[in-house]
Amino acid sequence: MPVEIITSLQNPRLKRLVRLRDRRSRDEERAFLVEGYREIRRALEKKVQIDELYFSKDWFLGSNEPSLIAEAEAAGAKLFELTKDAFAKVAYRERPDGLLGVAPQWQRSLSDILLPKDPFILVVEAIEKPGNLGTILRSADAAGCDAVVVCDPVTDLFNPNVVRASTGVLFSVPCVVEESSRVLEWLRARGIRTVATTPAAKELYTQAPLTGPLAIIMGSEQYGLSEFWLKNSDLPVRIPMAGQADSLNVAMAALITLFEAVRQRGLGR
Amino acid sequence: MPVEIITSLQNPRLKRLVRLRDRRSRDEERAFLVEGYREIRRALEKKVQIDELYFSKDWFLGSNEPSLIAEAEAAGAKLFELTKDAFAKVAYRERPDGLLGVAPQWQRSLSDILLPKDPFILVVEAIEKPGNLGTILRSADAAGCDAVVVCDPVTDLFNPNVVRASTGVLFSVPCVVEESSRVLEWLRARGIRTVATTPAAKELYTQAPLTGPLAIIMGSEQYGLSEFWLKNSDLPVRIPMAGQADSLNVAMAALITLFEAVRQRGLGR
Repeated sequence: MPVEIITSLQNPRLKRLVRLRDRRSRDEERAFLVEGYREIRRALEKKVQIDELYFSKDWFLGSNEPSLIAEAEAAGAKLFELTKDAFAKVAYRERPDGLLGVAPQWQRSLSDILLPKDPFILVVEAIEKPGNLGTILRSADAAGCDAVVVCDPVTDLFNPNVVRASTGVLFSVPCVVEESSRVLEWLRARGIRTVATTPAAKELYTQAPLTGPLAIIMGSEQYGLSEFWLKNSDLPVRIPMAGQADSLNVAMAALITLFEAVRQRGLGR
Repeated sequence: MPVEIITSLQNPRLKRLVRLRDRRSRDEERAFLVEGYREIRRALEKKVQIDELYFSKDWFLGSNEPSLIAEAEAAGAKLFELTKDAFAKVAYRERPDGLLGVAPQWQRSLSDILLPKDPFILVVEAIEKPGNLGTILRSADAAGCDAVVVCDPVTDLFNPNVVRASTGVLFSVPCVVEESSRVLEWLRARGIRTVATTPAAKELYTQAPLTGPLAIIMGSEQYGLSEFWLKNSDLPVRIPMAGQADSLNVAMAALITLFEAVRQRGLGR
């Protein structure tokens, strides 16, 4: 197919790409931005549809870009070649690499999650910072979680900084957004124990049993766990802190707890 | 003392503050920037000298700023009040809070580190990203490390992003910069075992003994551990990875390994 070439900074397609940085536009269009070689590669690997791919050779950092573009086109992406200036206008990153895709949003519900015999799930509440949510997804991927459930999120999953901070893991870890009360109901119906981290807990996270069907519950950055999860979790646990009270943020606490569960569950042996 | 008021954007003091963002200027002056309420508060708590404090009421976020400024002045800081525009010029952060200090750099050497009976040390090699180094300092603080030793750093300790990402922990965790060969010599002379994380290791980090005198060695973001530390470490260990190979970055791997050591050492009980 012939590639459409965009040179005018006034081109409406470019304006739309800039609009997609805003949540309202993303939600209205049910679309989102996937910027960068690594992220687009991972989307294609995971069979995530890329509807449109915008590229500018002037920004390429390596030599693999043309084959990635060909692969995206073969998978159905419409291609647009941009001048250096035009790409600079739409690039979200400080150091663009000349590749920007638009993908349709998806919506998974709890019933889409495939559960093994001993599910290992991470539940995070009301996360505010996209960078933290992206890091949490990476941690869940590394730990081998079966799913990440995001309750009442402040940031949306499709924020460009979530895509980026997740390094594309967003495309591989099953991730569902749902209200807390429905999540609790779903976990209980499946006999999945809930272990919630909170500084007020008596038990150390390393002394709590983290084997069997398990959901680890993490609160938000600013407020910690909500009353709802504090009251309804099966077991509160704490992470010991030697230094300043805020040295561990929610993403760091999630990582520590997940890997203690990995240890107890004998994963990776 | 009367407070000097700066209104001109051409004031040489403002130009100097902007220059201190660059490592060369920092190194020449042996000074660095401490921006933000939390960071300045922690510097004062830890008796770190603040030579100069620049503030602008127009950017204050709360009501505690005047008492912090008074405290800094009592501790010897010279005060400068800036207009909103003048502060915008010197602020390094995207969302300034109207407080920017200048502090003299310090230099600690290995011989300055006070070691307890069973030292618990983190050694990091050639870290490139200031954000990672700052996060690593937070992790070491939370885990109760006796010192962080930074070998052959690419980023300097006094980079504004290290100060920021460390949330001021830079002022409390003993942190030394030294060449790898001298660090190894120092560790060996003190009978401190070196455990190095590398994906090529056979042993899981959870099955390796992390009690007693211990130094955990972490490689750089891009290249991992150097030949030097691979060859000279007492025990290589690996972290199990369920997902994509790069889901864990160096800061995340350091955090996981540190908290496994905390568990084995029975800290926080």
